Amino acid sequence: MADYIETLQRLAEQFGRLQGVGRKSAMRMAFSVLELDDEAVREFSEALIEAKEKIHECPVCGNLTDRDICSVCSDLSRDRSIICVVEDVKAVVSIEKVREFKGVYHVLHGAISPVNGITPDKIRFKELIQRVGEGEVKEVIVATNPTPDGEVTAMYISKYLKPLGVKVTRLAYGVPVGSDLEYADEVTLGRAIEGRRDV
Amino acid sequence: MADYIETLQRLAEQFGRLQGVGRKSAMRMAFSVLELDDEAVREFSEALIEAKEKIHECPVCGNLTDRDICSVCSDLSRDRSIICVVEDVKAVVSIEKVREFKGVYHVLHGAISPVNGITPDKIRFKELIQRVGEGEVKEVIVATNPTPDGEVTAMYISKYLKPLGVKVTRLAYGVPVGSDLEYADEVTLGRAIEGRRDV
Repeated sequence: MADYIETLQRLAEQFGRLQGVGRKSAMRMAFSVLELDDEAVREFSEALIEAKEKIHECPVCGNLTDRDICSVCSDLSRDRSIICVVEDVKAVVSIEKVREFKGVYHVLHGAISPVNGITPDKIRFKELIQRVGEGEVKEVIVATNPTPDGEVTAMYISKYLKPLGVKVTRLAYGVPVGSDLEYADEVTLGRAIEGRRDV
Repeated sequence: MADYIETLQRLAEQFGRLQGVGRKSAMRMAFSVLELDDEAVREFSEALIEAKEKIHECPVCGNLTDRDICSVCSDLSRDRSIICVVEDVKAVVSIEKVREFKGVYHVLHGAISPVNGITPDKIRFKELIQRVGEGEVKEVIVATNPTPDGEVTAMYISKYLKPLGVKVTRLAYGVPVGSDLEYADEVTLGRAIEGRRDV
C-alpha cells in the first residue's frame, strides 16, 4: 500500500540513502515527517541544504566546519605542538567530548588499506607531513582506529615521522573502563596485559 | 566539538524530531547527509516539502494518499461490503502487505482511551457510523491494536454497530507463527488456548 503513495515512498528512499538507515526505519521516519507541522518540515528541508552548502573541510586540519577555519584550529588556547591524527571527523567529536586533549587535530579522511587500494596519497597524509615540516610540532598522537587498516596507517605515519625528530605516540590499548573482563576479547585482553602499568 | 558546527547541529536537531530517532542517531544521520552529493541533498530537501504538501487523508477512509482518493478506495476490485477498522495508517500498510484482505479500510486515527480523555468524538468514529449507515456494508472487521485502548475501542464499535444488523468481527489472538511457545507471554498464550480450533 505504502508503495502506492509515491510521494511518501520517495521520501522514505531519501532517508534510506543515509548510512545505517534500513528500509523499515526509513518508512517510519517518512511517516513521522507527516506528523510535523508545515513550518517544521520547511525548517528541516532548509537545514539539509544549508548544512550541505556551508559545511566544508577545515583547510588546516581537515575537520568539518561551517566557518573559514574549524573551531579547534581557530581556538588560540589549543597547543599547536601536539597533533592528534584521526581517520575521520567522528573521531574528533569523540575525543573532544572527553575534554582531555588540548592539542590540535589532523583528519586523514580515511586509512591506508593496501587490500582496498587506498595508498597514502589517497588520504590527507601529504598535508600531515607538510604541517609537521613547518617545525612547530613536537608530538604526533596517532589515534587511528584499532583495526588492521588503522594499524597499518599508524605504522606508516610513525616510520615516516620519527626520522624527522618528532615524537610519535599511539593511543593505549586495553580493557574499557567499567566493562567486565569476562566480555573482553582475547586480543584486547592480551594487549591490556602487555601494556600493564605499575600501580 | 560537533556542537560548534552549528549548521550540522541544527540539521541533527531536525532528524531528532522524528519519532524514534535518538540524539546519537540524529547526529550520525546529519553526518551522513554531508556524504551525499549536492543533487541528492536537493532531492531530499524537496521530497520533504513535497510529501508534506501532497499527502493528506483520504476523504473516504482516512488512509493517507497523494491523490484525491486513496489507492484502496479507488480500486474498483475491492469489496466495499467489508470494512477493516484500524487505528492508524501503519496498520493499513501492515495488512496490505499480507495481500489477503480484499475489502476496504477505515482509519480511526487513534483509539478510544478514557484514561487519556480520548472519547469517540475525537477519533474518526462518526465517519465510520456514517459509512455503515449508507447500507452497503455487511461486515466490519475491528483490527484495532491488541492493547487495552484498542480493546475498549473494539468493544465500543461492536456495541454500536451490532444493533444496526452489521456483522462485527475481531482479529484472532494467538501465538505468532514461527515463534517459540517458550517466549509467548501468558496473556497471549491464554488467548491462544481459549481460541483453539479443530485440526
